[in-house]
Amino acid sequence: MQITFLGTSSGVPTKSRNVSSVAIKLPQRSEVWLFDCGEGTQHQIMRSDIKSSQITKIFITHLHGDHIFGLAGLLASCGMAGATQRMDIYAPSGLGEYLDASLRYSETKLAYPVKVHRAKTGVVFSDADFTVTCAPLKHRVTAYGYRLTEHDRTGRFDVEKAKSLGIPEGKVYGLLKQGKTVTLEDGRTFNGADFVGAPQKGRAIAYCTDTIYCDNAVELAQKANVLIHEATFAHQDADMAFARLHSTTTMAAQVALGAQVQQLVMTHFSPRYLNLDELLAEARAIFPNTILAHDFLTIDVPYSTN
Amino acid sequence: MQITFLGTSSGVPTKSRNVSSVAIKLPQRSEVWLFDCGEGTQHQIMRSDIKSSQITKIFITHLHGDHIFGLAGLLASCGMAGATQRMDIYAPSGLGEYLDASLRYSETKLAYPVKVHRAKTGVVFSDADFTVTCAPLKHRVTAYGYRLTEHDRTGRFDVEKAKSLGIPEGKVYGLLKQGKTVTLEDGRTFNGADFVGAPQKGRAIAYCTDTIYCDNAVELAQKANVLIHEATFAHQDADMAFARLHSTTTMAAQVALGAQVQQLVMTHFSPRYLNLDELLAEARAIFPNTILAHDFLTIDVPYSTN
Repeated sequence: MQITFLGTSSGVPTKSRNVSSVAIKLPQRSEVWLFDCGEGTQHQIMRSDIKSSQITKIFITHLHGDHIFGLAGLLASCGMAGATQRMDIYAPSGLGEYLDASLRYSETKLAYPVKVHRAKTGVVFSDADFTVTCAPLKHRVTAYGYRLTEHDRTGRFDVEKAKSLGIPEGKVYGLLKQGKTVTLEDGRTFNGADFVGAPQKGRAIAYCTDTIYCDNAVELAQKANVLIHEATFAHQDADMAFARLHSTTTMAAQVALGAQVQQLVMTHFSPRYLNLDELLAEARAIFPNTILAHDFLTIDVPYSTN
Repeated sequence: MQITFLGTSSGVPTKSRNVSSVAIKLPQRSEVWLFDCGEGTQHQIMRSDIKSSQITKIFITHLHGDHIFGLAGLLASCGMAGATQRMDIYAPSGLGEYLDASLRYSETKLAYPVKVHRAKTGVVFSDADFTVTCAPLKHRVTAYGYRLTEHDRTGRFDVEKAKSLGIPEGKVYGLLKQGKTVTLEDGRTFNGADFVGAPQKGRAIAYCTDTIYCDNAVELAQKANVLIHEATFAHQDADMAFARLHSTTTMAAQVALGAQVQQLVMTHFSPRYLNLDELLAEARAIFPNTILAHDFLTIDVPYSTN
């Protein structure tokens, strides 16, 4: 799992930061899942190493323009590039109608199926590999935070070792994979634990924007490997954060601390701050393993260290 | 009048060309008028010397996404930047509803008035300085071409000369400005023609996209100083131009020739062409004073040479 930030400014784009979008590459299935899609997201994708043809899911936090105005253009361009695979979009109520209107008035006909799912608290998607949950945040409009959880994987069975010991392939391998002890016809006894590697604990990413500090963000981010949290304002501008229901650096760090995450990545910075060093210092004073996102920052999500 | 191309690709953005938008600076009134507003137009404006705060009118040719998907974001950003002056938008039927839906679902509240006017054949705007007319083109959806005509200006009255000759200010100046002959109380006689410079013929710009060759484009562009015409396809790809109702280089040049314009600027190139030299040569074979637009190309509109 690899995270690429495509837009890290709040409200309006700046010369160096576009409005919100984050891509998560899932190399094991050659898919990319997007979180939010502000205007110009397709342009940012073009300038990154993300392949728009691999996008299969788009999760939208809320319907403010800086999080959705790039959606219709991205879908239209995917269509013109010959996309055929289904696209699933998860979003609060109203997104389907917005998208319908955009596509209808612009007479955009997509040759591939697009399904808009209404996000609701709890599990929004789950399959053999991943579960995505969401919970409402605290913003001026309905906004959801998302958590992407990779399922734990059982340890790898060491086929080469079994073969080299002359253990016959077939049913015995299955028993060993399950960790059982097996006695062969030739009298030798083997313990499955000697052939199966350690299980791999799945990783988790939480994506919380736009919101002021809220318990649901802490809940969503519990022990996540990476928490992406908005930090629109510096600590000293908390009055604006309260007025507009955005977070300060301090609030983002408090969520990270409360949720015991491994790493905090702050994003969605107000264009008023030209130098973000102080914002970073404010957060690190509370949660040291904090970094600032910038457009095209790419992070390999680490496995848990404990 | 100065033209700046903000997007010169057709359908989808490329790394070097954004989708359609053209800005026309009117320095005499500190205004900018936009023609089309594809996704990312606000980003392009930020990278140009256009001030979004000076935009007072936006003319939309048609509702395809690559011409309108940047509109809601631009208006929202103008709002966040504190815009207060009225914005007039001229567009085919449906644009108002599209914009309403975009602003409503995204809960974007603009603090300045936006008025959407439905473009109809004929004069869409006129004041003391300019007239804008439009006429339907031939595309897959309703599309209008626009012509911006600067009114002729009477010659400048040479106040300094009149003063230096001791002609008393006031009513006499008015008569001289009108070109009349005036006899002063001191017996001297002056002819207005000696104080008034040559009248300045107004300039005209025609903007024709998206369309296949059509008579209305020729009509709109009559003797224009600059004709901006789409040339999505090379001459050899005329079959695609006919199928999609776009123009080839040859068609664009034929419009320029038929309309006896001063200069043709081709734009809206299909991303399939990596080298546009041949497209330029094709057009120049028919209409020599042709250039290719590129993003951020800026042209001072010349006065007529005849």
